Amino acid sequence: MSKRYKITIAYDGTNFAGFQSQPQQRTVQTVLEAAVNKMSTAADFVHVFGSGRTDAGVHALGQVAHFDLENEIPEQGIVNGLNSILPLDIQILAAQVVPTSFHARFTTHAKSYVYRVSRGRFVDPFKRFYTGHYKYPLDVKLIKAALPDVIGEHDFSSFVAAGSQARSHVRTIYQATVTENPTSNEVVFEFCGNGFLYNQVRIMVAALLEIGNGRRPVHDFLRLYEVKDRNECRQTAPASGLYLKKVYYNDDWLKNV
Amino acid sequence: MSKRYKITIAYDGTNFAGFQSQPQQRTVQTVLEAAVNKMSTAADFVHVFGSGRTDAGVHALGQVAHFDLENEIPEQGIVNGLNSILPLDIQILAAQVVPTSFHARFTTHAKSYVYRVSRGRFVDPFKRFYTGHYKYPLDVKLIKAALPDVIGEHDFSSFVAAGSQARSHVRTIYQATVTENPTSNEVVFEFCGNGFLYNQVRIMVAALLEIGNGRRPVHDFLRLYEVKDRNECRQTAPASGLYLKKVYYNDDWLKNV
Repeated sequence: MSKRYKITIAYDGTNFAGFQSQPQQRTVQTVLEAAVNKMSTAADFVHVFGSGRTDAGVHALGQVAHFDLENEIPEQGIVNGLNSILPLDIQILAAQVVPTSFHARFTTHAKSYVYRVSRGRFVDPFKRFYTGHYKYPLDVKLIKAALPDVIGEHDFSSFVAAGSQARSHVRTIYQATVTENPTSNEVVFEFCGNGFLYNQVRIMVAALLEIGNGRRPVHDFLRLYEVKDRNECRQTAPASGLYLKKVYYNDDWLKNV
Repeated sequence: MSKRYKITIAYDGTNFAGFQSQPQQRTVQTVLEAAVNKMSTAADFVHVFGSGRTDAGVHALGQVAHFDLENEIPEQGIVNGLNSILPLDIQILAAQVVPTSFHARFTTHAKSYVYRVSRGRFVDPFKRFYTGHYKYPLDVKLIKAALPDVIGEHDFSSFVAAGSQARSHVRTIYQATVTENPTSNEVVFEFCGNGFLYNQVRIMVAALLEIGNGRRPVHDFLRLYEVKDRNECRQTAPASGLYLKKVYYNDDWLKNV
């Protein structure tokens, strides 16, 4: 009787061609599956299922995936075993035996993302892979005034990149915050929602930065929900600033927000 | 009449084979000289002189170098011009016209280094190039008790790597501190001294971590100064944790310590 394991993963996305397996590419899924299969005694290949894709260069602080093993390994053994096999840009933070009704992708209730923007005329050499960069003036008060428009159930068709296979562009955002950090000279966004469309966070961040710079009206999101046109929102903030922070299952996420 | 420019530089050392030019290698000096020569109208090659070498993988928050230009460029023009030419892992923080009596290497009065150690059983994927790592238990109080022995004029022969060309191994350390950061789970060292031998900071940090772990007596530095034997201090903390923080000229460094 095989057991299902849920793992929580952090990775530096810089040197990955995204999460999902692709031929001839180094992806998170490929690297994870190679490690998991070294710990499996089964003859059949063990697949690893993620909560969703992340693009090339996008990071994770708490991605979630699951896989089934025929041989039983204690939870801490999964963590230590995988970490001793995996390369240094990916790390297992936790492992948990879960019922087979759990599915990393299909039972997701919510996800949260962080987006870090560094400011200043030039990019800090230590942040080039770990933040987006905005060199123009920003009035964070304008962004704060726009954020209530982001929260709630909306049609995000103006904020979805070509290539999305989602049947509906309606999503609910539970929380949207922006924080200024003068020490690190960064502006940090955080979003929590029931799901996000392809490139949605990066397109929303780009639009919010335009609001902060005054080149887009504060309440432009209300118009963008109506027009449902990506041409009204052409910019996409770079992958380097985006972090999948947490994936929520069941209703316990409500306690953490 | 040519002018001498002092520049202050930050770089992420990860993808550099150290500061000093070497054939077929990407070094900080090679990359700087290529950029500086694009801004020079002189027929002759313009050399860039650093305050000293840093090894492959070692970072800089405030390295200093100088060069001479026949054509006059305003200080801010040097900063903006070089930054627009240089790759993203190196950044000019400041430029200043200085008298030709200034020499980035020979008029140095003091230097300070930071060494970041991350703790925990596994390396944080985001820190693998930016910290050293110590997975064993550490009692930072023991390290704090050892640090007064580091300060002052000592013969650091036990703390110098093979390959050092220094005529004397006597150096003076003005300040040595260690800080625990529970949020980032790091232990951060900082040293300021009149000069440092080849790998000295990394060998001292390795010895201090052994003191913190209890595998070396707290006041072992006093013995190590006497025995003058690198075999008594075999470990070298990895390059990834080391940052050249600041290079001091004249006596104005005293004000900043």
